[in-house]
Amino acid sequence: MTEPIAKGSSETGRVEAFSDGVFAIAITLLVLEIQVPQPEVTGHGSTLLPALLSLWPSYLGYLISFITIGIMWVNHHSMFVLIQRTDRYFLLISVFFLMCIAFLPFPTAVLAEYLADPKGRRVAVAFYSATFVLIALAYNAVWWYAARGGRLLHRKADREAVETISKRYLVGPVAYGLSFVLAFVNPWASLAVHGLLITFYILPVRKPTASRPAI
Amino acid sequence: MTEPIAKGSSETGRVEAFSDGVFAIAITLLVLEIQVPQPEVTGHGSTLLPALLSLWPSYLGYLISFITIGIMWVNHHSMFVLIQRTDRYFLLISVFFLMCIAFLPFPTAVLAEYLADPKGRRVAVAFYSATFVLIALAYNAVWWYAARGGRLLHRKADREAVETISKRYLVGPVAYGLSFVLAFVNPWASLAVHGLLITFYILPVRKPTASRPAI
Amino acid sequence: MTEPIAKGSSETGRVEAFSDGVFAIAITLLVLEIQVPQPEVTGHGSTLLPALLSLWPSYLGYLISFITIGIMWVNHHSMFVLIQRTDRYFLLISVFFLMCIAFLPFPTAVLAEYLADPKGRRVAVAFYSATFVLIALAYNAVWWYAARGGRLLHRKADREAVETISKRYLVGPVAYGLSFVLAFVNPWASLAVHGLLITFYILPVRKPTASRPAI
Amino acid sequence: MTEPIAKGSSETGRVEAFSDGVFAIAITLLVLEIQVPQPEVTGHGSTLLPALLSLWPSYLGYLISFITIGIMWVNHHSMFVLIQRTDRYFLLISVFFLMCIAFLPFPTAVLAEYLADPKGRRVAVAFYSATFVLIALAYNAVWWYAARGGRLLHRKADREAVETISKRYLVGPVAYGLSFVLAFVNPWASLAVHGLLITFYILPVRKPTASRPAI
Repeated sequence: MTEPIAKGSSETGRVEAFSDGVFAIAITLLVLEIQVPQPEVTGHGSTLLPALLSLWPSYLGYLISFITIGIMWVNHHSMFVLIQRTDRYFLLISVFFLMCIAFLPFPTAVLAEYLADPKGRRVAVAFYSATFVLIALAYNAVWWYAARGGRLLHRKADREAVETISKRYLVGPVAYGLSFVLAFVNPWASLAVHGLLITFYILPVRKPTASRPAI
Repeated sequence: MTEPIAKGSSETGRVEAFSDGVFAIAITLLVLEIQVPQPEVTGHGSTLLPALLSLWPSYLGYLISFITIGIMWVNHHSMFVLIQRTDRYFLLISVFFLMCIAFLPFPTAVLAEYLADPKGRRVAVAFYSATFVLIALAYNAVWWYAARGGRLLHRKADREAVETISKRYLVGPVAYGLSFVLAFVNPWASLAVHGLLITFYILPVRKPTASRPAI
Repeated sequence: MTEPIAKGSSETGRVEAFSDGVFAIAITLLVLEIQVPQPEVTGHGSTLLPALLSLWPSYLGYLISFITIGIMWVNHHSMFVLIQRTDRYFLLISVFFLMCIAFLPFPTAVLAEYLADPKGRRVAVAFYSATFVLIALAYNAVWWYAARGGRLLHRKADREAVETISKRYLVGPVAYGLSFVLAFVNPWASLAVHGLLITFYILPVRKPTASRPAI
Repeated sequence: MTEPIAKGSSETGRVEAFSDGVFAIAITLLVLEIQVPQPEVTGHGSTLLPALLSLWPSYLGYLISFITIGIMWVNHHSMFVLIQRTDRYFLLISVFFLMCIAFLPFPTAVLAEYLADPKGRRVAVAFYSATFVLIALAYNAVWWYAARGGRLLHRKADREAVETISKRYLVGPVAYGLSFVLAFVNPWASLAVHGLLITFYILPVRKPTASRPAI
């Protein structure tokens, strides 16, 4: 009885570790996009404080991107409680998903560079939201492939939980699609959708009970 | 009896691995902030030695940030000897904590750029210390959430050790708060507090005995 | 009976983890090569959209490099299902292989910089293909060393699978060699070979059956 | 009987994983120091090939640093076959060692920038060798702390192997010290010492026999 469990755990173990690696690196690289104010710009430090404050778009981009990836990591974690097996196509879809995650530092840097700029703001926010549409679609693809017909799930995976998760994940692409459209109308409203989604995904799928943990 | 233990270990396993990943990456990215002296500046190498020596603020920033994160990693390690379970909120607080850690290369680079500059030094050191106030608060939040009422701890977790750790961790925000204030008075004294805190946290909580290991 | 298995798994465990680390980092660093269009170039954002579109060589390089490394990671994963042991020379060959993988962000950046430029295109694509020739040869060396005479394989490793893999991996150096030569004739045809190889390696070695999983 | 073993393995597990993370990141960051030749310098690509060839000091630095860290990783791996336990001081010494490893991309970049330059070459090679003296000393400190009186070793650790390793590791600081001195006399001879050390550390400590694996 022990062997299949051990095998299953090692099977998803490596894709979990690899995903965690890409999550961790992409999330940590975000800071490299924040540029140190150069001495020529700050009068050799005499205006360093306002210069640091004027980097607020960089801090905001860092905050949204970091927390969103962080929550995705937490949910990815919940997902793999239910997934027991892997196969080639699952690994390949995971690679595609990770490619979208790893791309995020670039649109975040574009956002940071142009958010304070009325002429570039719309395109920058739209580009940022479009990346999240792609990430959310890829995230759903990973889950759909694993969950469809219970293909890669634990046999005992709670059916209700699986359906709740499926519905919940679908909110992502729709909401990010909305934020993409909103970017052309009002970039700030578009970013507000990102904030709302963070709040939505922080909430657990269901309250934990004595017999069932929160997922 | 075996299952809960195995489950527990795998439960904290992934958050430990992810934290270690972010710790390792943030700590290793610090070196990217040290700029190679350009050939135009060093007369094509004829003044390379003084140019390398004049980078001492970069080396100092690298040293303090690396060792402080390293010690935090060691203590994080000790913390997870006592923590057995995770839940969604714990993971989210951990994400917030890691966001603060991953931000550190930026204030370190600001420090390196302006430490030798009398006009920017105060703000640079204050910004650096302020980041550590945030890191220390987030670190305490991770511990408090897990330890409060023994929420996520091992049932057999040594109560005395838990209380000692709780007190000890509180030193961080207070001392870094002090170094933040000191930065405006005397930046060197402020950095000295960082050095003292490193010494403080290197010491074990209690001497190891035959029956109890150092923590 | 349990011990040898546990030992074997721990033996390859660390090289798998280290390889995964280098794979994950190299793949994630690719995004750093994409440069944010500067405000001076985009008229402070008024031409941000065309500026983002003109970065297509960067996106293409990111796409090909990411997916190719991703597939290599998946196949590396399949390889280690069959490999049970390690020795010093195997680890050293793995280090050499990882050195080639970790180098990839550089030729990818060269490709992105010169692909749209008729004068530099041939050399850039040839340099990119030459790197893949080296990667493919190193990948084969890792496998050959492990598989030759079953040196490091599981005793029960399916012989037919081993031979199929051996033949399949040989396609890599030959096809990348071809894409290297083609680069001087027609750089686009050379890149098309990269696309074909991605398709080829996505297909499983054999259809999974009830008794044998896909590899 | 099972528990102490499981505990021991998990005890060194996290420091091994963290070390592997820093090794993997430092090694992979090396490529970031290689600069893409800019279009202004290469006549928009017409002199791309000679420009890529003129980067040979970067390739050489990448090669030496990557392989040396890679071999250190392999030997670190052998070291942890013998080490069973950790304690606070061991972790702190490990942090110090990793700080030296993670610093390496900087002297490698300095070497790449000034190796082709007769005026800066001596200082660049000496700085590079000095870093390796530090790394080798820190590496020895990790081993000495663990091995002294068998402090953290397996009880059954082969005594002869422990002594052979101790002697072998001492070669590092001495040889790198020599290469440091040589840098001022003849930088190429100094780099040759790095090459010889790579060859020396590639050889196993002893031939594997039926009863004893190579270490």
